[in-house]
Amino acid sequence: MAAVKAPEIITDKAQMRQWSRSMRAQGKSIGLVPTMGYLHEGHLSLIREAHKHTHLIVVSVYVNPGQFSPNEDLSTYPSDFDGDIKKIMSVPGGADVVFHPHNLYDYGESGVENEMKREKDGVIMSCVEDRGMGHETWVRVDRLEKGMCGKSRPVFFRGVATVVSKLFNIVEPDVAVFGKKDYQQWRIIRRMVRDLDFAVTVIGSEIVRGDDGLAMSSRNVHLSPNEREKALSISKSLSKAKYAAEKGQINCTELRNSVIQAIHEAGGRVDYAEIVDQESLEAVEEINVHVVFCIAAWFGKVRLIDNMEINL
Amino acid sequence: MAAVKAPEIITDKAQMRQWSRSMRAQGKSIGLVPTMGYLHEGHLSLIREAHKHTHLIVVSVYVNPGQFSPNEDLSTYPSDFDGDIKKIMSVPGGADVVFHPHNLYDYGESGVENEMKREKDGVIMSCVEDRGMGHETWVRVDRLEKGMCGKSRPVFFRGVATVVSKLFNIVEPDVAVFGKKDYQQWRIIRRMVRDLDFAVTVIGSEIVRGDDGLAMSSRNVHLSPNEREKALSISKSLSKAKYAAEKGQINCTELRNSVIQAIHEAGGRVDYAEIVDQESLEAVEEINVHVVFCIAAWFGKVRLIDNMEINL
Repeated sequence: MAAVKAPEIITDKAQMRQWSRSMRAQGKSIGLVPTMGYLHEGHLSLIREAHKHTHLIVVSVYVNPGQFSPNEDLSTYPSDFDGDIKKIMSVPGGADVVFHPHNLYDYGESGVENEMKREKDGVIMSCVEDRGMGHETWVRVDRLEKGMCGKSRPVFFRGVATVVSKLFNIVEPDVAVFGKKDYQQWRIIRRMVRDLDFAVTVIGSEIVRGDDGLAMSSRNVHLSPNEREKALSISKSLSKAKYAAEKGQINCTELRNSVIQAIHEAGGRVDYAEIVDQESLEAVEEINVHVVFCIAAWFGKVRLIDNMEINL
Repeated sequence: MAAVKAPEIITDKAQMRQWSRSMRAQGKSIGLVPTMGYLHEGHLSLIREAHKHTHLIVVSVYVNPGQFSPNEDLSTYPSDFDGDIKKIMSVPGGADVVFHPHNLYDYGESGVENEMKREKDGVIMSCVEDRGMGHETWVRVDRLEKGMCGKSRPVFFRGVATVVSKLFNIVEPDVAVFGKKDYQQWRIIRRMVRDLDFAVTVIGSEIVRGDDGLAMSSRNVHLSPNEREKALSISKSLSKAKYAAEKGQINCTELRNSVIQAIHEAGGRVDYAEIVDQESLEAVEEINVHVVFCIAAWFGKVRLIDNMEINL
């Protein structure tokens, strides 16, 4: 195997855009894989997917405070930048650039001025407001952002859509690859791209699972071996439900109950278990369209999500 | 004077972006002047301003349903496309392209599917939702959008920020010129560009007034000669207030009352009269920072806005 070159590491917004523009001027197309770092096989599969579509690959590594509430796990979100670079280089072709900004919400003087105003207002939502950053523009995808993860994490999708808009405007990619493990996120980004006319093609990449069936997630590192064993109830019960649906059980209440019960019996706490239309993400009562069965559940202090598409 | 060439008229999004990209590949910079048409001297001053900054000029002419409530004047908003082209050609250098899309919210099949969902939801806000368009992504500038025009027109700035995002993503300009007559809009667009990292420099262009002092507006055409005469109370009382401030009257309550009274006596109905910080648009009690005195008032069925910066 040919040695994979180390990616160029860029931390500055202007320099990132300059790189993209100079590459585009040379006729090269650019693929973006946005990540929050602590990469695993799931992320690497996104990089492999991106290589199918564009000449050059940018992987962004940035833990976005705009999608965390102050009471969520931003401070404990795992990171290992050196390890990430090594993992990226283990993929054939690697990446051309790793974009690793320090703070995407730092606007210098004009941000500081706003900090004082925030304290006066006393309004706090995400960690961006909580830290007194002056940022105040948010991209909202009205309907798709409301259900499922949006219900439990009200600032989450606002933060995701906003930081992806920023990354698109900085990196100016032709293609961006998102994992379908974050199914609702993937649909929201696609809708946002359509509605705001971003010149970016959004690709959804299939879920990567461990040998035991657990969907890959950076948060899995926080699971004890025992919790991980219990967490397998998510993928196992989802597979069972999918099989049952394919065999004729199309009643969603029945299917949901069986999954909720299985996770509960394994010691998990279900946040939601919903069977929704793949496009609109609206709940269905019977499976007669293309649906996706989405789960979020807590095992110990770790919240995991997973999903399976069911196309009858 | 050399004959000014007719602008190329482009109605298709993809074709518009293709034009911009091919020009950029040739090293040309692009200026955008977004308008809703029915051009007047104020708009033409924006085109003249744009010529100072870029090689090429795109003027967009599009009445944006996303910034009108169903009960506002979208249906009676004046238009004269042929006249607009002639006026653009009266400016030295004219424009290279007039971007004149039919419907920026038409997404084909995926929009139609959503229309049915909207009716189920029964949620209506702007004319975009009212007409059952599937669009659901909105750009919000949290603090700046709330006061003044945002109070009387709750969907307005959401619609403006969103359509300007769309235009930026379609036209991909280097520079965009906005009139400071719409002061709050100008500040909101600048903040949005900063917060979402758009690669666009936003220029604010000074208000253009008729010989009688009335700020130029497409809506002025709806004023009877008598109403126009009365509407002069806005610019006259603003000038008086500015003069008073410069002479030492820094109490904003006093200054506001004098303007409100003058407009009221002329037969106008004041929507708001606020003296605010030029950056944050927060109301001030005494003028000891750079402020702008902003007015909105109705004369007959016409709502007019105007403002003056006061830099003591």
